[in-house]
Amino acid sequence: MGQFPVNLEEAIEWLASFGGEPDGGVSRTLYSQPWKDAQQALKGWMEDAGLDTTYDSIGNLFGRVPSSNPNAQTILIGSHVDTVKAGGKYDGAYGIIAGILALDFLKKTYGTPAINLEVVSFCEEEGSRFPLALWGSGMMTGIYSFNDISDIKDSEGISFETAMMAAGFGLSEYRVRNDIQNFIELHIEQGPTLEKVEKSIGIVKAIVGQKRFRITVNGESNHVGTTSMIWRRDALHGAVNMIHDLYESVKNYDEDLVTSVGQLFVEPNVPNVIPNQVRFTVDARHPNESILSSFCQQFTEMFKTHAKKSDLDIKVEMWHEVQPAQMDRTLNEIVQSICTRSTFPFHWMNSGAGHDAQLFARICPTTIIFVPSQDGISHSPIEFTLSKDLETGLEVLIQLLHQLAYNH
Amino acid sequence: MGQFPVNLEEAIEWLASFGGEPDGGVSRTLYSQPWKDAQQALKGWMEDAGLDTTYDSIGNLFGRVPSSNPNAQTILIGSHVDTVKAGGKYDGAYGIIAGILALDFLKKTYGTPAINLEVVSFCEEEGSRFPLALWGSGMMTGIYSFNDISDIKDSEGISFETAMMAAGFGLSEYRVRNDIQNFIELHIEQGPTLEKVEKSIGIVKAIVGQKRFRITVNGESNHVGTTSMIWRRDALHGAVNMIHDLYESVKNYDEDLVTSVGQLFVEPNVPNVIPNQVRFTVDARHPNESILSSFCQQFTEMFKTHAKKSDLDIKVEMWHEVQPAQMDRTLNEIVQSICTRSTFPFHWMNSGAGHDAQLFARICPTTIIFVPSQDGISHSPIEFTLSKDLETGLEVLIQLLHQLAYNH
Repeated sequence: MGQFPVNLEEAIEWLASFGGEPDGGVSRTLYSQPWKDAQQALKGWMEDAGLDTTYDSIGNLFGRVPSSNPNAQTILIGSHVDTVKAGGKYDGAYGIIAGILALDFLKKTYGTPAINLEVVSFCEEEGSRFPLALWGSGMMTGIYSFNDISDIKDSEGISFETAMMAAGFGLSEYRVRNDIQNFIELHIEQGPTLEKVEKSIGIVKAIVGQKRFRITVNGESNHVGTTSMIWRRDALHGAVNMIHDLYESVKNYDEDLVTSVGQLFVEPNVPNVIPNQVRFTVDARHPNESILSSFCQQFTEMFKTHAKKSDLDIKVEMWHEVQPAQMDRTLNEIVQSICTRSTFPFHWMNSGAGHDAQLFARICPTTIIFVPSQDGISHSPIEFTLSKDLETGLEVLIQLLHQLAYNH
Repeated sequence: MGQFPVNLEEAIEWLASFGGEPDGGVSRTLYSQPWKDAQQALKGWMEDAGLDTTYDSIGNLFGRVPSSNPNAQTILIGSHVDTVKAGGKYDGAYGIIAGILALDFLKKTYGTPAINLEVVSFCEEEGSRFPLALWGSGMMTGIYSFNDISDIKDSEGISFETAMMAAGFGLSEYRVRNDIQNFIELHIEQGPTLEKVEKSIGIVKAIVGQKRFRITVNGESNHVGTTSMIWRRDALHGAVNMIHDLYESVKNYDEDLVTSVGQLFVEPNVPNVIPNQVRFTVDARHPNESILSSFCQQFTEMFKTHAKKSDLDIKVEMWHEVQPAQMDRTLNEIVQSICTRSTFPFHWMNSGAGHDAQLFARICPTTIIFVPSQDGISHSPIEFTLSKDLETGLEVLIQLLHQLAYNH
């Protein structure tokens, strides 16, 4: 391998070496030294490929193939360079690498495009170092501003601003661009769907909306032996009835709805005492906001009915909410026609995880293209995607960009 | 108040002063200084009442009114002097105090009985200092021996034997008596039944058997957003179905069956990850061993069916078991006739908690008589029973002993 990688497989290993750990994990949190090294290396590689590079004032890195038309808009392609702690080699990285390889190929093969083509390596998406996610795309789309980071610190007490300035960013005002015509993100699925349905390409219809709730059920502690079943105010029995019916109710919704109770605490949590309190979370996701809201309203009412029937007190609080983001139908139909023409097996699906594309969907026609994740595993050192699937994704991206930027 | 109490109410406060705490709680764990002080004080009071006192070699204290017949057997009355940490004033104490007052009254009023009457202050029942319960009655009934304490230490690392010897006991072999004709225990209910049904006296049919289980359900962790409902191996969803159906199944059993899930742990227990493991306990109690066994077998099979259906692994372990103990029908019918004659409102019931009486039931006709616990609360500084209920219990005990030991 020379200074820079020459193919996809090499590039994945090369980028993973910045923040790489002995067990194969990658830790490249925002504004850390491995993060700086990775962005600088990517800048070098982009320049080596003949792209015009710039950083914006927060550390998003761009590599551009300009159109000959000075009034042309820009098709932006890319993903995020940051990782979770001990994350994998593909999450985010794949979208940046494929973007650079696609632009390199298109420029060499077809020359100057009719529309500017630009790859972006977003500075941050995961929210792993600071409790704020989608920083890079949030600033680019004008949804975030410097106000959003004023009170934020990492786990070591370093403020967001201090870390940003130490990395050489945040020193000038942020200029929101108005030339973005489309945003296209290539990403690993991070779930098991494509593997289960045996398809190479996921055409993403929407990134689901999320609503997260905290439920507190209060009853009364008593001796399990001396308290007859009919006189109990058992918080766990009540919570179990609620969760049971929550999962039953999902069966009456469409297959796009997912709901989960991931966290549950029992008080006092000893074998021979009737629980007086149970706290649990509900996470509900669906690509359609009104269906999601209606589902959440229904289970909230159902929980309250259960509580009343069992003489329990209940508190239901929503503590986190993300609106669904619809991907662009026209872009997706082009992706479908490319897959059909090239006989790449594809599958229309939703993204249950969040991505930079969800913020761009608010300002321009946007889509996200998935490739399979082995065993659905992500955010782990054993995150893996087959080379042939990575290559298929890159091929679809190249054909899509060719059709959008050269067929004029 | 003189050196010794002259009535029930005074005696409860007097005994509670040994190990008494500022908040009204009582801590009198086995072989501690407050425990020694309490037994010595009770010995003094018994002697003041004209009873012949002895300790056995483990610290059970006896006060005897001997019959004139040297071949007479003995009716033993009493309860335990030890308490849980920060327990109440009535648990155990009431049964000893009532025994002393009853014998004092009977001796003064009717003279020498036809059968020996003896009150016992058992050294230990709760299992609060050492992980072994029913020590006093276990040794008296020959069910325990010194072998059972050989490896047992308290939370400070002091061995059972060391603590016993420091208190002046355990220095000679234990002599199991063969003169016990009946055992009768007066005790607070420690549950809400008598209060709910508005009765003063509980006639105990049986002390329930207990079986306690540890259930481990293993599934697979996944991202809650990216894993469709149909591809999940959600350990919490599986456990919730099991517990839901456990409580449903109780409805088809008689009202004497109680079952509880008191403890439940979820792994990894974070809102956005599908749980891969749930561990929970099941406690089931019933006065009939075959009904209890059959119930436990049924839910074990039902749990395994649920696990199989949801592609989960399951382990069911029984870690604690107590056989039910039947109280003597003849003694109970005498108690009922006393209550009827004296117009004391009574209720036939089971004891869901364990008591010294459960071991005596194996060697002689035995019963236990309950008085109400306010709000069903016990093992707490706010444990409380009305004076009039305590007096009613004492009156029943006196009449019962009179009938058994003088009507010959």
